[in-house]
Amino acid sequence: MKKLFLLASLLMAFGISADAGDITSPNGQIKVNFTLDGTVPTYSVTYQGKTIIKPSRLGYQLAKGGKDGKDLLSDFSVINEKTSTFDETWTPVWGENKSIRNHYNDMLVELKQNSTDSYMNVRFRVYDDGVGLRYEFPQKGNLNYFTIKEERTEFVMTGDHTAWWIPGDYDTQEYEYTKTRLSGIRPALHAAVSSNLSQTVFSDTGVQTSLQLKTDDGIYINLHEAALVDYPAMHLNLDDKTMTFTSWLTPDAQGMKGYMQTPFKSPWRTMVITDDARKVLSSNLILNLNEPCKIKDTSWIHPVKYVGVWWEMISGKGEWAYTHDYPTVKLDGTDYVHAKPSGKHSANNANVRRYIDFAAAHGFDAVLVEGWNIGWEDWSGYMKEKVFDFLTPYPDFDIKALNEYAHSKGVKLIMHHETSSSVMNYEKYMDRAYQLMKDYGYDAVKSGYVGNIIPRGEHHYSQLEINHYLHAVTRAADYHIMVNAHEAVRPTGLCRTYPNLIGNESARGTEYQAFGGTKPGHTAILPFTRLQGGPMDYTPGIFEMDCANGSHCNSTICGQLALYVTMYSPLQMAADFPENYEKHMDAFQFIKDVAVDWDKSIYLEAEPMEYITAARKAKGSDNWFVGGVTGMKAHQSTVKLDFLEKGKKYVATIYQDAKNANYKTNPQAYVITKKTVTSKSVLKLNSVAGGGFAISLLAQ
Amino acid sequence: MKKLFLLASLLMAFGISADAGDITSPNGQIKVNFTLDGTVPTYSVTYQGKTIIKPSRLGYQLAKGGKDGKDLLSDFSVINEKTSTFDETWTPVWGENKSIRNHYNDMLVELKQNSTDSYMNVRFRVYDDGVGLRYEFPQKGNLNYFTIKEERTEFVMTGDHTAWWIPGDYDTQEYEYTKTRLSGIRPALHAAVSSNLSQTVFSDTGVQTSLQLKTDDGIYINLHEAALVDYPAMHLNLDDKTMTFTSWLTPDAQGMKGYMQTPFKSPWRTMVITDDARKVLSSNLILNLNEPCKIKDTSWIHPVKYVGVWWEMISGKGEWAYTHDYPTVKLDGTDYVHAKPSGKHSANNANVRRYIDFAAAHGFDAVLVEGWNIGWEDWSGYMKEKVFDFLTPYPDFDIKALNEYAHSKGVKLIMHHETSSSVMNYEKYMDRAYQLMKDYGYDAVKSGYVGNIIPRGEHHYSQLEINHYLHAVTRAADYHIMVNAHEAVRPTGLCRTYPNLIGNESARGTEYQAFGGTKPGHTAILPFTRLQGGPMDYTPGIFEMDCANGSHCNSTICGQLALYVTMYSPLQMAADFPENYEKHMDAFQFIKDVAVDWDKSIYLEAEPMEYITAARKAKGSDNWFVGGVTGMKAHQSTVKLDFLEKGKKYVATIYQDAKNANYKTNPQAYVITKKTVTSKSVLKLNSVAGGGFAISLLAQ
Repeated sequence: MKKLFLLASLLMAFGISADAGDITSPNGQIKVNFTLDGTVPTYSVTYQGKTIIKPSRLGYQLAKGGKDGKDLLSDFSVINEKTSTFDETWTPVWGENKSIRNHYNDMLVELKQNSTDSYMNVRFRVYDDGVGLRYEFPQKGNLNYFTIKEERTEFVMTGDHTAWWIPGDYDTQEYEYTKTRLSGIRPALHAAVSSNLSQTVFSDTGVQTSLQLKTDDGIYINLHEAALVDYPAMHLNLDDKTMTFTSWLTPDAQGMKGYMQTPFKSPWRTMVITDDARKVLSSNLILNLNEPCKIKDTSWIHPVKYVGVWWEMISGKGEWAYTHDYPTVKLDGTDYVHAKPSGKHSANNANVRRYIDFAAAHGFDAVLVEGWNIGWEDWSGYMKEKVFDFLTPYPDFDIKALNEYAHSKGVKLIMHHETSSSVMNYEKYMDRAYQLMKDYGYDAVKSGYVGNIIPRGEHHYSQLEINHYLHAVTRAADYHIMVNAHEAVRPTGLCRTYPNLIGNESARGTEYQAFGGTKPGHTAILPFTRLQGGPMDYTPGIFEMDCANGSHCNSTICGQLALYVTMYSPLQMAADFPENYEKHMDAFQFIKDVAVDWDKSIYLEAEPMEYITAARKAKGSDNWFVGGVTGMKAHQSTVKLDFLEKGKKYVATIYQDAKNANYKTNPQAYVITKKTVTSKSVLKLNSVAGGGFAISLLAQ
Repeated sequence: MKKLFLLASLLMAFGISADAGDITSPNGQIKVNFTLDGTVPTYSVTYQGKTIIKPSRLGYQLAKGGKDGKDLLSDFSVINEKTSTFDETWTPVWGENKSIRNHYNDMLVELKQNSTDSYMNVRFRVYDDGVGLRYEFPQKGNLNYFTIKEERTEFVMTGDHTAWWIPGDYDTQEYEYTKTRLSGIRPALHAAVSSNLSQTVFSDTGVQTSLQLKTDDGIYINLHEAALVDYPAMHLNLDDKTMTFTSWLTPDAQGMKGYMQTPFKSPWRTMVITDDARKVLSSNLILNLNEPCKIKDTSWIHPVKYVGVWWEMISGKGEWAYTHDYPTVKLDGTDYVHAKPSGKHSANNANVRRYIDFAAAHGFDAVLVEGWNIGWEDWSGYMKEKVFDFLTPYPDFDIKALNEYAHSKGVKLIMHHETSSSVMNYEKYMDRAYQLMKDYGYDAVKSGYVGNIIPRGEHHYSQLEINHYLHAVTRAADYHIMVNAHEAVRPTGLCRTYPNLIGNESARGTEYQAFGGTKPGHTAILPFTRLQGGPMDYTPGIFEMDCANGSHCNSTICGQLALYVTMYSPLQMAADFPENYEKHMDAFQFIKDVAVDWDKSIYLEAEPMEYITAARKAKGSDNWFVGGVTGMKAHQSTVKLDFLEKGKKYVATIYQDAKNANYKTNPQAYVITKKTVTSKSVLKLNSVAGGGFAISLLAQ
């Protein structure tokens, strides 16, 4: 049910003067001021009367276009201002809550560049929990086409705040977070760069969004973007003398940063502002700033809980490749039929059937199979255009029989399309690849973009690739296919508009636990950063922390269980091997029970990188699930169950780290207790460093 | 019928020493010597005992790969040499002759780079009319992947030859030819560069292939390449001190010149060598150096004679665009349904029906319609990614009704896919676009690549784009669609392997007659250059030389008729308007009569840029057609009809320039005579400058 309260109050006086205007949030706590500083557009933001964003300039440097390519930085007049109020409640296809309120005040400032007859508008939307601003270029005057040299949107900070950040990079987001003062970014940046198969660090003070900040007086500021469409992804570059972040777009192969045609609207630049860290996590500002769903029939889109032939290869037990016979392979030249199997190929018929059996036995919807298709013998790092055809299975993967077997057991297979970042190649095969999926009854694909982008010189986050990722999603929708894209651009809430985008990686996922490990605290910062834009296919659920390749996963089993609640996603994997779960079926019960779609979500406590505790009510059910994760320090959570229905009884199953649990030395130590609870109950739960807890609350 | 005489004479002694080897043509007139000059691979060529190519070095500069990317230029040993002889006659799907003999001696020189364990082989094939050489990299030793910085194949000339050339350019071939000495290239090069919507001239002495040369003692040398697959197109850069041409490949967006994976074979570098200019035109060396047909069922591939809604827009009478309402348009935003038609849109239902009626009345197979689909209002020059969708007709083009109407009259429509060089976009839509064609019964597409390539920074002739053009052809074959690609790379004989590639532009076509004119002589050089690699959709047949836009076509009507014979193509257009043909139905009769597929072709006389006279026997018929074109000078041709069947009578209809014809001032002056002739007849035919003649010889 959708309630619409559109109160168009055009040209309402919100304290507007000739070259300035204010707009406040519905609750009055956040206020945005727009002012022409001379002829330079600027804005500032206050929260509860305190300055959060000091006067910050807006505009663009142009490479060409417009009136001789004159920069859109100054020489402006305000020709009009319009304000309005919007209040609507909408229903997501899937999500943390059954319905989402979208309530904001809006101010459109229409600007004219005096000497060029160019028009650039700035729109502000002010919510109770933050601000969005974007540029809007009408098809008017001199600007029909132009090329962006740089967007120059400033965010002038009020002090040397604390920041949780990863290095700015045109090609990867898979870094661990660093917590420093703003002044600490420069000295720490290069040490924060770990190696990746494709990476392009561009500045000593460049960081990625979503960027979590905290002021010394306890205000949380989160900077990101929303609705990134036909535009390069934004980074933030810090001037650490003035504590000013300025937008830094991702360039194309020629160093340009956007080819624009009017009319167009930039992505939103978002600022979540709150004195309560939990409100950063519960904010819907980014989803709300995206367009409503454009897919008419969404009946085929559904949350997915899955297992997969994947961790075997990641952790070194198996391989994606089929043979060791050849130093290199070619799609159209290699004889796979007569090649000798290496015996390490995980995506073989017998093993896939084993996963299907396990999925069916334990109520999983689907089985992901990576390594099913030819080309994996030398798939990455060679700047090879034709790496995969997305069509041809290895000799030991019987696509027809395996799908029939899975379907006979009520399970679906999830397709895998690793592109090796050869976008040119993927687009050549995309229609055939999606059609093959339909032919065999797949309805979801995990895609991957490992390595340097082809077309060469382009970056993972440049405009052409942004357009590719969305093309892959919209074209998939035509085939009723859901998409989970790895190594694609960080999400910006587009899953509201295209809810078949059920997941993304776009951050350092669980796989890094098998690549040397990730520090505890990572899962307590991701919801503040990466998850701001949309769900992550984090692939939790590792029970055996010691990998075949020698890497150790820095987590406890309870820390893993918690993630199914703390890391919201409609797509949740139980990533470990069946045989590892079978050793801990009591703990595994939580993964079997936990929902993947929700009527309601509540963040009970949160502090970036330290702890997050969330409670969620399963969709169409009275059952609740609670999860808590901790960072580098042990943590005691006091969980008041006052969110439960009054007067109702619930059987609580509590999965806690054992007292002697230790994410390094004793990760499999847990205690499971059961008790009956009500809305009046309060639970004290202890988590070790790198640990956590999980609770299922089944209504009686 | 195919006769195969494969005489594998491996390791036969053809005068091979440890580090040198000779191989001669079957008739003994051409001899190639391979020698290691120290450790540097070199080759030289003689013809009738005269040196044609002086010792010339072979090899590659590498950007990376191999043993630390060491250049493959020296440090080589010969580890093996193999020679063999091949003689086969094959049948093309369409062509100048019913069957083609492929007869050569072959020498493979296997080279090892001593310090790196890298292997580079050079293969020579020596024909009676020339030489092909290529590099072959086995999957052996250190070279699995490498990146080419430059191919360094030399062609050292023996003197300051005469050359007919166009400037080297990474993005266009649409230049007029210049005739100079080799020493005259540098002073003339920049004046030879006319403006184009996409062009990248790279050197003061760079020229394109096919390059026609002539020595002072009358030897014709033609340098080109064959079988350009997964590799950038080659230019030739002249060192005009040493008269040495060196290969100069087309770079990608990062300046690299090829990403290679062993095993692979480079394209052939070809040298046609003869003392008879006619043999350059009749050479099948380039076709023979391509792989046999890879399309199993070729029954759907057929020659096409067509008219089109095209010259109207080119010459300024009409427009591709539908409306003048908008300064710019967007595929997904522009309201075409409510736009006001400009009244200039040529691809409207009534006009297309008029062309269909004309085609049906005069025996044409098809009607090309450009401007049928939305997006033309601002289609070029803006570096816009989404220009066309190849799916959505303008409101006044009823795709269903027009195809039904055409089919009811035995005529097909030819689809048009202008990509505006947004290759990324075309590949996104390609499957849908081809499927739309099948849905409505199109079996041929004219594609276009006007403007700068997207992915930006790539060039029309860089490796990624070469791969795109072939992808478009092979994917079209899957849909049984024939391709005629304009502005794509110059052909290199791939139509043997993929005979659904029935045409290309890839040179300055008739359209330039409406863009200010092209000098006479252009059509007397194109068969020596552009047509060496495959047929050209030159779009001849202009009868009204004065265009609506004020441009004048530098030709006579008889000069236009001649082109249907002199410029071999299985795809021939009658490019002018129906109403212009209707004024000259007697001359138009030749275009109606002339065949587009042949049992036999004979070049009767030829000199680059001056004159070409050809005679061809229609496929499966006893009828012959003769055409002659002239350049800047009037020319008298003495045509001996001794190619006709002895004893048979033929009705000759002779279309000649009138005495007072003049390509500038009186182009429509022609004389048509009829007489009965036999194989003993000799015709004297006078052509004015920029004119020509045509003869149909219908067997009695």
